[in-house]
Amino acid sequence: MEYNGVTIDETYAEAFPTWVSRVIITAVTEEWAYKAAVEATGFATSAIGCPCEAGVEGFVPAEETPDGRPGYAILICAGKKKLKEQVVERLAECVLTAPTTAVFDGLPEAEERIPVKLHFFGDGYEYKKEVGGRQCWAIPIMNGEYVGEEDFGIVKGVAGGNFFIMGENQMAALMAAQAAVDAIASVCGVITSFPGGIVASGSKVGSNKYKFMSASTNEKYCPTLREQVEDSLVPEGVKAIYEIVIDGVDEESVKEAMSAGVKAATRVPGVVFISAGNFGGNLGPFKIELKDLF
Amino acid sequence: MEYNGVTIDETYAEAFPTWVSRVIITAVTEEWAYKAAVEATGFATSAIGCPCEAGVEGFVPAEETPDGRPGYAILICAGKKKLKEQVVERLAECVLTAPTTAVFDGLPEAEERIPVKLHFFGDGYEYKKEVGGRQCWAIPIMNGEYVGEEDFGIVKGVAGGNFFIMGENQMAALMAAQAAVDAIASVCGVITSFPGGIVASGSKVGSNKYKFMSASTNEKYCPTLREQVEDSLVPEGVKAIYEIVIDGVDEESVKEAMSAGVKAATRVPGVVFISAGNFGGNLGPFKIELKDLF
Amino acid sequence: MEYNGVTIDETYAEAFPTWVSRVIITAVTEEWAYKAAVEATGFATSAIGCPCEAGVEGFVPAEETPDGRPGYAILICAGKKKLKEQVVERLAECVLTAPTTAVFDGLPEAEERIPVKLHFFGDGYEYKKEVGGRQCWAIPIMNGEYVGEEDFGIVKGVAGGNFFIMGENQMAALMAAQAAVDAIASVCGVITSFPGGIVASGSKVGSNKYKFMSASTNEKYCPTLREQVEDSLVPEGVKAIYEIVIDGVDEESVKEAMSAGVKAATRVPGVVFISAGNFGGNLGPFKIELKDLF
Amino acid sequence: MEYNGVTIDETYAEAFPTWVSRVIITAVTEEWAYKAAVEATGFATSAIGCPCEAGVEGFVPAEETPDGRPGYAILICAGKKKLKEQVVERLAECVLTAPTTAVFDGLPEAEERIPVKLHFFGDGYEYKKEVGGRQCWAIPIMNGEYVGEEDFGIVKGVAGGNFFIMGENQMAALMAAQAAVDAIASVCGVITSFPGGIVASGSKVGSNKYKFMSASTNEKYCPTLREQVEDSLVPEGVKAIYEIVIDGVDEESVKEAMSAGVKAATRVPGVVFISAGNFGGNLGPFKIELKDLF
Repeated sequence: MEYNGVTIDETYAEAFPTWVSRVIITAVTEEWAYKAAVEATGFATSAIGCPCEAGVEGFVPAEETPDGRPGYAILICAGKKKLKEQVVERLAECVLTAPTTAVFDGLPEAEERIPVKLHFFGDGYEYKKEVGGRQCWAIPIMNGEYVGEEDFGIVKGVAGGNFFIMGENQMAALMAAQAAVDAIASVCGVITSFPGGIVASGSKVGSNKYKFMSASTNEKYCPTLREQVEDSLVPEGVKAIYEIVIDGVDEESVKEAMSAGVKAATRVPGVVFISAGNFGGNLGPFKIELKDLF
Repeated sequence: MEYNGVTIDETYAEAFPTWVSRVIITAVTEEWAYKAAVEATGFATSAIGCPCEAGVEGFVPAEETPDGRPGYAILICAGKKKLKEQVVERLAECVLTAPTTAVFDGLPEAEERIPVKLHFFGDGYEYKKEVGGRQCWAIPIMNGEYVGEEDFGIVKGVAGGNFFIMGENQMAALMAAQAAVDAIASVCGVITSFPGGIVASGSKVGSNKYKFMSASTNEKYCPTLREQVEDSLVPEGVKAIYEIVIDGVDEESVKEAMSAGVKAATRVPGVVFISAGNFGGNLGPFKIELKDLF
Repeated sequence: MEYNGVTIDETYAEAFPTWVSRVIITAVTEEWAYKAAVEATGFATSAIGCPCEAGVEGFVPAEETPDGRPGYAILICAGKKKLKEQVVERLAECVLTAPTTAVFDGLPEAEERIPVKLHFFGDGYEYKKEVGGRQCWAIPIMNGEYVGEEDFGIVKGVAGGNFFIMGENQMAALMAAQAAVDAIASVCGVITSFPGGIVASGSKVGSNKYKFMSASTNEKYCPTLREQVEDSLVPEGVKAIYEIVIDGVDEESVKEAMSAGVKAATRVPGVVFISAGNFGGNLGPFKIELKDLF
Repeated sequence: MEYNGVTIDETYAEAFPTWVSRVIITAVTEEWAYKAAVEATGFATSAIGCPCEAGVEGFVPAEETPDGRPGYAILICAGKKKLKEQVVERLAECVLTAPTTAVFDGLPEAEERIPVKLHFFGDGYEYKKEVGGRQCWAIPIMNGEYVGEEDFGIVKGVAGGNFFIMGENQMAALMAAQAAVDAIASVCGVITSFPGGIVASGSKVGSNKYKFMSASTNEKYCPTLREQVEDSLVPEGVKAIYEIVIDGVDEESVKEAMSAGVKAATRVPGVVFISAGNFGGNLGPFKIELKDLF
């Protein structure tokens, strides 16, 4: 099919289950909440080499946060055990240390819960405090008091929702990827964990030549190898491909994000083809067809 | 002594040796280089709970980078073994994956070297390529080709240079901390690895109450505990304290950063006292006296 | 009364009628739409010395714009004749010249209309084109084609909605002003036209000493003149005052913005008093009582 | 000739004299200085329809400003009479009103001077004050005190230095234009006054069809009119052209900026041709040959 004159491949994205924590970080101004959110979600592009996948979901206006201050929601995604460890470490090192911050559970309805006991940092000076109906701990620190919840909901979400943007040159594909990320930013419950939300070097599982590698370049999608690789999947005229990878709290939000992203990408001049990544359908329980996004 | 009407404590910052790698990340525009740099240096505030300390040192203009594109220099700091692992992982996951990036060694004169072999990702399609006199590997990827050096200099640098900004209220201290971070950003060879460059919750080693904690709140510097803690070091009238922690390639640059930061902080109205953190001088080999900064 | 421990003055903001145009600027990405919006609304803080008052109202997601691309809404406010001239000049010089932009009427329901005939720039090569149900002109330009509507609704709105944030020092007042501007940014139909949304030098009409001045410093609200001016209105302990000035499409949205802004400001530590500016109620037809904001 | 594989046209940019003022705006942090600088230089893309041309030249670190705070230098360009009026209005409305700002003359060596008497705003409460060796006025205002010089140097500079970036599609040309603007940002003494520094709709003098227009689309450089216009100057394969227009304090800095910008643009994939705009050499006294930039 075509959309806005761009060919949409007859394929699907194959995605995987992951555990997801959603944390609301508030601060005195939007900017300071954002700085903490960015630090807390750094070095978290891909579970292949990072301790988790994480990203900034979006802005949460003051009237929707427990303490009436502006905030950002972040998602942290990993296996269950790793998730608890990562939420603790990232909040302890990157949010408790950040100016004027507070943290709140962003999944208060979730049945599954993890404890995040930062209050031990208070060395006995900490005390319980209710903020906006939430049971928090207040910890005396050098800039005053840190306030935070310590019981966080987690849900079984979806990792690896994705699509490929193919351009007649690199800059067309890149700007389309940016437009896609912009559009996805308006969707609740999802993140794009790679740098700027974009993957420049999509990978295949394992490696043909170097057996010690758990992932390597996906040569079938490398435009410079189009003539060299026998079964290249790079369409004629395509010079660059970016992958957008989406993690989310459920399949519905990942699908909504894919839809917003694909539509946005097709509006950028120089984009010629949209596809998606899968492993034949045998690995991941979620299959999101591109044709169902429209 | 006083500077700009602010009392400067008669004390010193105690700092420690660390191994430092300096990486130049370039991209098609300044913005894309910055996005990769931020992702690669996230979750890296403090060695206490993060795998390393890292931050963006500063912008490197196109005429000073090997490939003539705009770039950012980042510093990654850790023990020697951990450093190699972290440089590899952070470049592999956060820069190789980022749109249009290339990486170059930012310490070409350093005698000590570490290998950073990303080229295995190329699965045999990679090849050697010289860029601006540097021996690089080019790896075919989905957005075209990634180019990077794989031999990086490391130096024995300094971690934990610091000073405390004390304000008559929290916002005065915070804006002064921001002004200090702004000033430090112009100094070469240093980073401030905490969120936005600022520490809100400076810690002491260990914990009196919770023996399993390796660090806990520094109650002597907590303004809300001033009346409660016997030997509080919070001066009268101080309501908030921020710590600026600086890592750098050598003692001289850390000292220069401290000087620029302290001077900037004293120009912000509402700042009343500047001090620094040390452990009695027995732990760290570097002692930087505040009075020597002027 | 008090709110979050801050005294709210028993007074009101006095505001004035103005004509308002609302323009949607779209572009290939959010960033490029924003750059055009900022340029088009610059040098437009106050009708006293600028040709109009203008500002960025907020982001408009792709699914709400006529061409399905991300956009920003801007407001331009002035007397009716001046408004037409300013909309034409600002769109011609700052949006038509900006990369990839399109413009659409942001007040399609308004009965009062102004023509904005940019298509003459096409020198005869221009042609009519429908986009998302809107009658537009397409103008061939160097970067491709500019597309825009040329018939814009205007409404009788409200200028000069305002409140004063008073702090125990300058940085507390400034951060509170920033928090207020952040909160107002989420309100539809309003702008804060001053730099960063904040007024540092609120004025009175005319001047006592220099008769040729149409406005001069409001000495009764100058903290440094508190002991010098007989009838100073600076409360004890206040060291700095910022004014937030709001223009909007109607009284309701200005009131909503004032409410969001005042509430946000009171949450910032160091803020001690909120007031508002008026001229005794004889000049402006709109009187918005602070006590009605809660 | 070719540079980085891109054809460089054998032509020159024709530029014009203009009067230039350079103002240093400082504030408590870099961010607040920048906000004032952006507001003060808005609605100032082209002298054709704006009251002046203006832009942010660049960051000035604290150690180089008279008051030791971070700052930004801006340039304002216009005819001599208009220039004085615009400097006064823009400083009065966009900088005096901005939080924590001070202004200083950025051309202290210039022989030609203009007075910028903002102190009348003080209504008699103002007083003289020396800051960093500069004679300033201090004006009591609501946020404390505004401080500024009132005697500004102006020099006969150069307006309209330019080059054209031609791409195989719009996004390649746009990213190259961005890369060029990034590179020019490192050059002292110049600005690129258009939105984001880039012109999407370069114009010719007058109009063939609409005699009341002083400028209209430059149809010879419109890619969509390539087949329609007899003497099109759009090279084969070019789908989009952006113009970078540079104003500066002298010919040398404009030339340096053109050099940095052109070189940067040629490094972006998809750029195929660089040219420049002139009027046959009869109008402007400055002719900057593209071949002399290398």
